[in-house]
Amino acid sequence: MKHGEVGIDRLLSEGVFTAAYPLHEGGFQPPSPPVPPQSLALRQILYSHWANWSSWRSYQPLDHIREYFGEKIALYFAWLGFYTGWLLPASLVGIMVFLFGFWLMATDVPAQELCNSTDSFTMCPLCNICSTWKYSEICTTFKVGLLFDNGGTVFFSAFMSLWAVTFLEFWKRTCSSLSHRWDCSEFQDIEERPRPEFTAMAPMTIRNPVTGAEEPYFPKNKRINRTLTGFMAIIIMVAVVLLFLIAIILYRTILSIVIDKSDTPLTGFASRIASITGSVLNLLVILMLSKVYTSLAHILTRWEMHRTQSKYEDMYILKVFIFQFINFYSSPVYIAFFKGRFVGYPGNYNTLLGIRNEDCGAGGCLIELAQELLIIMVGKQLINNIQEFLLPKLKSWWQKRNRSPRLKEQKGEKDEEGKGEKDEEQKGEKDEEGKGDEEEEVCPWEADYQLLVCEGLFSEYLEMVIQFGFITIFVAAFPLAPFFALINNWVEIRLDAQKFVTEYRRPVGERVQDIGIWLPILQLITHVAVFSNAFLIAFTSSFLPRLYYRNTRDSNLNGFINFTLATSPSNFSQQHTRCRYLDLRDEEGHYLPEYYHLLAIRLAFVIVFEHVVFFIGRMIDLIVPDVPEDVEIKIKREHYLAKEALAENQVQKTCFSPAVATGGSTPA
Amino acid sequence: MKHGEVGIDRLLSEGVFTAAYPLHEGGFQPPSPPVPPQSLALRQILYSHWANWSSWRSYQPLDHIREYFGEKIALYFAWLGFYTGWLLPASLVGIMVFLFGFWLMATDVPAQELCNSTDSFTMCPLCNICSTWKYSEICTTFKVGLLFDNGGTVFFSAFMSLWAVTFLEFWKRTCSSLSHRWDCSEFQDIEERPRPEFTAMAPMTIRNPVTGAEEPYFPKNKRINRTLTGFMAIIIMVAVVLLFLIAIILYRTILSIVIDKSDTPLTGFASRIASITGSVLNLLVILMLSKVYTSLAHILTRWEMHRTQSKYEDMYILKVFIFQFINFYSSPVYIAFFKGRFVGYPGNYNTLLGIRNEDCGAGGCLIELAQELLIIMVGKQLINNIQEFLLPKLKSWWQKRNRSPRLKEQKGEKDEEGKGEKDEEQKGEKDEEGKGDEEEEVCPWEADYQLLVCEGLFSEYLEMVIQFGFITIFVAAFPLAPFFALINNWVEIRLDAQKFVTEYRRPVGERVQDIGIWLPILQLITHVAVFSNAFLIAFTSSFLPRLYYRNTRDSNLNGFINFTLATSPSNFSQQHTRCRYLDLRDEEGHYLPEYYHLLAIRLAFVIVFEHVVFFIGRMIDLIVPDVPEDVEIKIKREHYLAKEALAENQVQKTCFSPAVATGGSTPA
Repeated sequence: MKHGEVGIDRLLSEGVFTAAYPLHEGGFQPPSPPVPPQSLALRQILYSHWANWSSWRSYQPLDHIREYFGEKIALYFAWLGFYTGWLLPASLVGIMVFLFGFWLMATDVPAQELCNSTDSFTMCPLCNICSTWKYSEICTTFKVGLLFDNGGTVFFSAFMSLWAVTFLEFWKRTCSSLSHRWDCSEFQDIEERPRPEFTAMAPMTIRNPVTGAEEPYFPKNKRINRTLTGFMAIIIMVAVVLLFLIAIILYRTILSIVIDKSDTPLTGFASRIASITGSVLNLLVILMLSKVYTSLAHILTRWEMHRTQSKYEDMYILKVFIFQFINFYSSPVYIAFFKGRFVGYPGNYNTLLGIRNEDCGAGGCLIELAQELLIIMVGKQLINNIQEFLLPKLKSWWQKRNRSPRLKEQKGEKDEEGKGEKDEEQKGEKDEEGKGDEEEEVCPWEADYQLLVCEGLFSEYLEMVIQFGFITIFVAAFPLAPFFALINNWVEIRLDAQKFVTEYRRPVGERVQDIGIWLPILQLITHVAVFSNAFLIAFTSSFLPRLYYRNTRDSNLNGFINFTLATSPSNFSQQHTRCRYLDLRDEEGHYLPEYYHLLAIRLAFVIVFEHVVFFIGRMIDLIVPDVPEDVEIKIKREHYLAKEALAENQVQKTCFSPAVATGGSTPA
Repeated sequence: MKHGEVGIDRLLSEGVFTAAYPLHEGGFQPPSPPVPPQSLALRQILYSHWANWSSWRSYQPLDHIREYFGEKIALYFAWLGFYTGWLLPASLVGIMVFLFGFWLMATDVPAQELCNSTDSFTMCPLCNICSTWKYSEICTTFKVGLLFDNGGTVFFSAFMSLWAVTFLEFWKRTCSSLSHRWDCSEFQDIEERPRPEFTAMAPMTIRNPVTGAEEPYFPKNKRINRTLTGFMAIIIMVAVVLLFLIAIILYRTILSIVIDKSDTPLTGFASRIASITGSVLNLLVILMLSKVYTSLAHILTRWEMHRTQSKYEDMYILKVFIFQFINFYSSPVYIAFFKGRFVGYPGNYNTLLGIRNEDCGAGGCLIELAQELLIIMVGKQLINNIQEFLLPKLKSWWQKRNRSPRLKEQKGEKDEEGKGEKDEEQKGEKDEEGKGDEEEEVCPWEADYQLLVCEGLFSEYLEMVIQFGFITIFVAAFPLAPFFALINNWVEIRLDAQKFVTEYRRPVGERVQDIGIWLPILQLITHVAVFSNAFLIAFTSSFLPRLYYRNTRDSNLNGFINFTLATSPSNFSQQHTRCRYLDLRDEEGHYLPEYYHLLAIRLAFVIVFEHVVFFIGRMIDLIVPDVPEDVEIKIKREHYLAKEALAENQVQKTCFSPAVATGGSTPA
């Protein structure tokens, strides 16, 4: 579409034509008596060797994909395959860290202390009208928490941050190898034409400074105004996201109080039930909002009047990415960094809208974060895959049912008119005449017309980028994330392949050098991941308090549970018996000196972690060249040969045909 | 030199020729009866409009410089001029911050408290055999310290970090404009020839993968071994630098004790004298070591057998840069971040080689850092400028005195041989015959032979880069640094211009796209500057303690002096009267809770400062495009026209001379 003339795009956008598309190479089913592979059509090869579940173990036939679909789509699949391959080591290490947690679960001294404490620790009530409880009740939760919150996690966070940097560096190498092989490494679109919508709507014309041709023009200040308005819309939508977040927080708080007071057998699981249903609700809200926002972004970006298709796409991607980033990550970020920090202490609780600020459940914030991630990430992937599997089938069934009659009608009309305006369908006109049975023997352009329109790679990339965020930004809380991502992507590759081979109309091939704006976005996520993991380990995990206790009190962590529990102030205890709560405060509610020692240690950890990881990442970035040496030599060799050939050509020209030598106009 | 044939370079390196150089365009003195500018030679124009002190206010004639010296040298001067221009706003803000310090000096409450304290604060002795002293004695030093250590400095550090980022971004724009104007924006050297030394020494040959020609080859693993050895030499030299650093520390400590005990009127200034002479000594050591190391690096890099000149230069730059970075900055880094941190406390002092660890002088570490920077940076600049001014004059006088007779001798020999092997000098042979008076009417190639060989831009760039480090990395301690740099560069531009126009042989013009490896080095320094300033403000300046005191105790800072002084433990006081020292400890020598509060605040400040500054810097980086829009359009326009011309040419070829159209060989 991007490189076509304004002409056909404009006629399409004005509804003169209903569609214009390249034809597929016949059907995708290989012929029923098997033939040797070299006599298969390309689409059949792709179907049987790529889009098939049975080829789950083989590499993708990238050169064939490129030949059939063009460089842009081939690069997407190359990236997806490369990413999936790199997920393998990450998920192996993740699983090992997780298993290390199992071993810890059995041997951890604080866990044993907690489970054996029976009635020693009477904990303060978790809500204003709740009653006190025994710390030993949460023995299991605490142990499960150890699966996610142990020393291995610190290692794994650093590992994943460096993994992400290395992955991107090596992708750059692979990408430059591929684009050199496909001869698009120097592709640059310098004379992109205006979008048809732009041409139709622009009120005036201007001379294009590059090509010198007269072109439609839309005043720049108007465009800036519209872009600003577009960004206001993002801000409003972000505000909506945050409102929903607060609503879910209130829902969780209220639900857990209601269950706790309800005198049913569920009472003991009040906060667990509240948080799990909260997460599910959250996932539904996220998916709903992202549907609403995607259509809104389409409308807004169209209204902003960008001259070229690539500018349009960039602005659309930017808009949707910013929104989706906040949409998907705001709730994990809230749980990781804000939940339970503003609770206050017994007798002096902080409130929001009259309700006591939400505290993390009895097992700590990290396990809640792990649970939220599990539900959002895995839930989203499941829903997405089912959608991707079922939706195209439903849609194409619907389209077949609806369009087939319309197509027949149109054909009737056309026959009356005598000559077809639709050049795409015109070619087949003659062959078609004799055939009566249209159900079985449709023409290829008719068969393809019944397929779905390929809507670009945007949503595919976005899905992967959001996933990449989950496996890097919050990896400290959920070491199994890369493993789930791996499984999802393994399925995703074949699902996407099937969509492209069997369910979409063949898209117009596009040339690109690389994956474009998605690479800087992935790099941004890698950066955010380092900050996020540093703060997660320092402030949310129990790694540093344990380390501190180990080095200042007892190297076996005996008494650690008691150390982490503060005693409620006497003014609070008048209403209750004296109770304990998780904090480092004295009996007046003031912070203990240990709190400040630990605070300094936490902050120092953030500084050290960030600097070390960024430094090593930077080193990897410097050491790994972006273009492999052999490709670089090949490129240089080609330049050299081209120069030699040019020089030789010049000589020949001057010798044999002096008249022609002066004929070409030289660039200014 | 770089792009010449191996031939002449090899003959030069083997001593067959003594020199080969392009000739200057006659003398540089404009003719004595002034002629209209258009009839002046280029060298005369450069001399009168660029290399002259009287043109200190005017822009540099970059196009003329480029025409005469080539792109590489012109880009150096463009960068130098651009940098000097950007120093202007930085030094204005720096001076304002410094003046703000003067105002503070008069109104600061702690300073008044200190000066009016008379005998209230008896301070602990500064060395083991020294006596106690009154805090009010250092009233002046304390006030001078305020010039460098106040709230304005925090602002200025952030300002300079962002200034540096913005400066580099805008330099990229200027550079791409210039390289486009000079038509070298796509220059890339793909067939660089081996260095003559390499050709002479390489034991075997190999086929070059780019050009396909047979070429000398030096086995890769041998080269790696040699490179590793080279880096070992750097490490040894760095160790030498650190040894000298320790020697100077001991010198300072011992000298201050000696003076203190010497019963001369200097006693009161003991630590001041020690630190000033220490700094001067340090400067001398730095300059000496850098001379030694530069020659060592030359030898090592030659020995490492790099194939091409550019590879050779890159390795040389890397070697020297790493060393000089440590050489120049180790002593300021020591004073800023280590001095006075490991002192211990009265009764429990830490020692090094039996001598008590060095503490910062009575006025604090920041003022010592300021003094060190003043001496090293300004002293180095002064010495350098005097060197650059005098040395070439001395050298060329020496060369003239020595070579003139030799030249005559050689010419005698040559006359005997009958034909000149030196093609450079051959051309003039005929004109020369009639002239007897060689003292006044030397031939141009003889006149130029008496000039100095231009040794490349490396030392010029290095000087500027080290200076850039001083004005960014330590700017929190010395807000006047940009101002001193500005003055130095103003002089430097004209000094360098004079050198190139009048004292150097005309260098062979070289094409480059940009300033090469120096840009990433400058970016690295900008990064280091942010870390360094964050830690300087957090840990070395008194900004945060004051802020803490203001917010927790007294908003007017009454009593701040008393707050910062700890009282010596009783076991120490048995030998002396009870005395005070700068620290936050209780009377047993344990840290006070306030120490930990402040530590947490300091670390949090580092995190916030780094993240905010890096974030804004990144934003600036993203928002400012590397190539100005008008240049980009021009480049696209040229590509477009070239493509059009090519297409047109192809059409003509096919129409008029089909024989030629198939003649050129196509690249593989």
